[in-house]
Amino acid sequence: MQTFAPVTPEIVERLQTIVGAANVIHRDPELAVYGRDETEDLQYRAEVAVKPRTTAEVQAVMRLSDETGIPVTPRGAGTGLSGGALPVFGGIVLSVERMNDILEIDEANLVARVQPGVINQVLQEAVGEVGLYYPPDPASWGSCQIGGNIAENAGGPHCVKYGLTKDYVLSLEAVLPNGDVFRTGGKLRKDVAGYQLGQLLVGSEGTLAIVTEATLRLIPKPAHKRVLLAAFDSLDTAANAIVAVYKSRITPSTLEIIEKAALEAAEEHLGRPVPYSDAEAQILVEVDGFDEESVDRDLMRVGEVLMEAGALDAMLADTPAKEEELWSVRRCLGEATKKVAAYVECDTAVPPSAVPELLRGVRRVAAEYGIRQISYGHAGDGNIHVNVLTDSPDREERERKLTPAIEAIFAVATSLGGTITGEHGVGCAQSRYLKLCRDPVAMRVMKGIKDAFDPKGLLNPGKVFEAKIPPPVAAV
Amino acid sequence: MQTFAPVTPEIVERLQTIVGAANVIHRDPELAVYGRDETEDLQYRAEVAVKPRTTAEVQAVMRLSDETGIPVTPRGAGTGLSGGALPVFGGIVLSVERMNDILEIDEANLVARVQPGVINQVLQEAVGEVGLYYPPDPASWGSCQIGGNIAENAGGPHCVKYGLTKDYVLSLEAVLPNGDVFRTGGKLRKDVAGYQLGQLLVGSEGTLAIVTEATLRLIPKPAHKRVLLAAFDSLDTAANAIVAVYKSRITPSTLEIIEKAALEAAEEHLGRPVPYSDAEAQILVEVDGFDEESVDRDLMRVGEVLMEAGALDAMLADTPAKEEELWSVRRCLGEATKKVAAYVECDTAVPPSAVPELLRGVRRVAAEYGIRQISYGHAGDGNIHVNVLTDSPDREERERKLTPAIEAIFAVATSLGGTITGEHGVGCAQSRYLKLCRDPVAMRVMKGIKDAFDPKGLLNPGKVFEAKIPPPVAAV
Repeated sequence: MQTFAPVTPEIVERLQTIVGAANVIHRDPELAVYGRDETEDLQYRAEVAVKPRTTAEVQAVMRLSDETGIPVTPRGAGTGLSGGALPVFGGIVLSVERMNDILEIDEANLVARVQPGVINQVLQEAVGEVGLYYPPDPASWGSCQIGGNIAENAGGPHCVKYGLTKDYVLSLEAVLPNGDVFRTGGKLRKDVAGYQLGQLLVGSEGTLAIVTEATLRLIPKPAHKRVLLAAFDSLDTAANAIVAVYKSRITPSTLEIIEKAALEAAEEHLGRPVPYSDAEAQILVEVDGFDEESVDRDLMRVGEVLMEAGALDAMLADTPAKEEELWSVRRCLGEATKKVAAYVECDTAVPPSAVPELLRGVRRVAAEYGIRQISYGHAGDGNIHVNVLTDSPDREERERKLTPAIEAIFAVATSLGGTITGEHGVGCAQSRYLKLCRDPVAMRVMKGIKDAFDPKGLLNPGKVFEAKIPPPVAAV
Repeated sequence: MQTFAPVTPEIVERLQTIVGAANVIHRDPELAVYGRDETEDLQYRAEVAVKPRTTAEVQAVMRLSDETGIPVTPRGAGTGLSGGALPVFGGIVLSVERMNDILEIDEANLVARVQPGVINQVLQEAVGEVGLYYPPDPASWGSCQIGGNIAENAGGPHCVKYGLTKDYVLSLEAVLPNGDVFRTGGKLRKDVAGYQLGQLLVGSEGTLAIVTEATLRLIPKPAHKRVLLAAFDSLDTAANAIVAVYKSRITPSTLEIIEKAALEAAEEHLGRPVPYSDAEAQILVEVDGFDEESVDRDLMRVGEVLMEAGALDAMLADTPAKEEELWSVRRCLGEATKKVAAYVECDTAVPPSAVPELLRGVRRVAAEYGIRQISYGHAGDGNIHVNVLTDSPDREERERKLTPAIEAIFAVATSLGGTITGEHGVGCAQSRYLKLCRDPVAMRVMKGIKDAFDPKGLLNPGKVFEAKIPPPVAAV
């Protein structure tokens, strides 16, 4: 196993000089927070956490790392689901939480310039106030930060129409592991001056450089949206209905599938009945646009397509309150599932037409391995979150029991031309599975890029690439 | 200056064994074609050109290059404007023109899988037949190939609404300089398994790997579109009107500006009067969508915005023939300008709101340096093609005269937060200017990536990075 230089009291002092003593955390219980994210119940141990405010401070921390050989794990809000922010080798956690300024909303150019610690929802609301829209909206949008969204190329329920984080990043400022800073461009819709370094950083999970500023594309905010919920008596029928919507050539702004076990978890979590809770599966559709009549017509058409495809019933949200009620079910599923039992989430994605086959395969695997599973997700994108559950509180036992089932689920996904992660990232939780969907040559190319950015391997070690990492520690 | 191993008769024989004798070109005049593209009048000398049909043949050619130290210059249709396909150091030109199969149009997943030699328009028409749309459409769409489009991250007049080539590349198959092949993913809308290698290859100008297959995203084809042309009595007023359209929050599918000198060139080229030919500037607008009424209403609204912003007059194309007439003017401008005089094209792009300032700056430079210039382009994207002209047939004299003016134009663009190339690429024609818009750290990062992919520097040498290259040869 790789080892790194330790954080000594002298290092803590130097960090205090860089960011101010108040922004260096080196004692529990505060420090423990920086050793976990939302990935299962994994807890690691940061030696120290620092909260820089400026790019220059990030540079100084990275120069210290480069000089001393202490690893740095960058961190947003810690809402990640693949362990990208976990300090698996200890060292310094660099949290961008204080770099949370919206530097500019440029209405003339439809651009926002932000620091990485800006919360997704804060940005959405700020741009919404001037009639603009930043579409990527992961379930954690109320707390997750733009820097983390960029690191993981975050998605969300509106990506089916609007695309991913990568589609909104025009340019970045970033700090290399050696402390050098660079920019990838400006407020430009078109710029082919050299390689797309910004796009390379998107989704690189904080392993190549630390993003210190982002220039994001905005779009005019759709003036109208409407939501519809359809109930099905089988998951198969629902999954096939998704394909029928695709073929209708209407592009909903949301197209989600939820199976019964997830609805039950939602009811339990919300403490109230959810609509169509006895259905075997539901499809949630949102249509948006600038023209009210077109939105209504498209939604009606999607409703017809779903009914023709075998829906038992469908309801339109005819008030904002009803709309919020329907959305709240979908939004709570991550939290709700977490309450049911310890789980491991397989973030599968397949070509959208293969969703029915994926869901059948998942149920086959669950039956074969005797595990429970709860599936839901962004069916319109082919991205299904399969949560495999266990009642065992013991991590090792859980791992022994679930790992073969997880591998079988990933085998189903990749046999359908799919991936092991549609939007959560590889981090340390999925790195051993990456080779299931990337060939050895692609893996070598990625490693070559990593080495070019980070020759000493000090930035977010133990992530993306399979590595022997220490076991998690007990929670504080 | 870097030197490379020569192509010997034995190498030619080995290439003939790989791709068949009919697909190895080693004599003029056929060979001369592979030594030029559409960049000014630059002509270089390939030692041999090969036309593989399969990925395996591309691999074999690259292994030969890797073994012998002979450089390889990949080539699409040779329609590039920055010299990306020019074999500046001789060696092998690898043309993908025979790799021209549309492998699959997957209507259920809205995806096309193509070989790199498929012509853009051929793909557009094939997907159009089943109601789908592939938006990137460079002016050369009738001849340019998807492989070249990917290499240059090609744009076109519809990018203002629909984005660039990068926004449609889901995944790629590519061959490394050493002959190894890899895939970056599948038919997936969402896939965050490791670095975005596909996005890194887009716009890398054939300097990192040779794309041998592309999986492209398609969208439903808009059912309706309408075109409007507006006339202005000054370029300033027209440029400000573009900003007003942006602020209206309507997103036209095309938003182009053309100045008078370009209209005159078009009239000369087409041999017929063009509409509003006495206007100092024109704006061409297209609005598209799925709802005829919305399209009409949005177009009318854009028309009102343009009139409020000072347009002298505006005309709607009310028949397909009229629409084609308006479009034909815009589409011929590259060819038309080329006929006026030898020229160098500055592919500037700035934040859209800075277009008026850019155009004023360009005219200031033209006056100061005593040069003629013709400007037009994708104003909605902030991407203006500034063609600086000279009557001198002598390349060196031309260069002496025009270079200071080009540098001054790029200085204007970059001072406005712009770039030296919005959609044409760097190639060898712009490599000396790249440092004007990319900082030294970004340049080092790019070079590190290049070295990781191509440690021997045999793939498309002399491109993107500033290098001493041989002078062009006389045309055959």
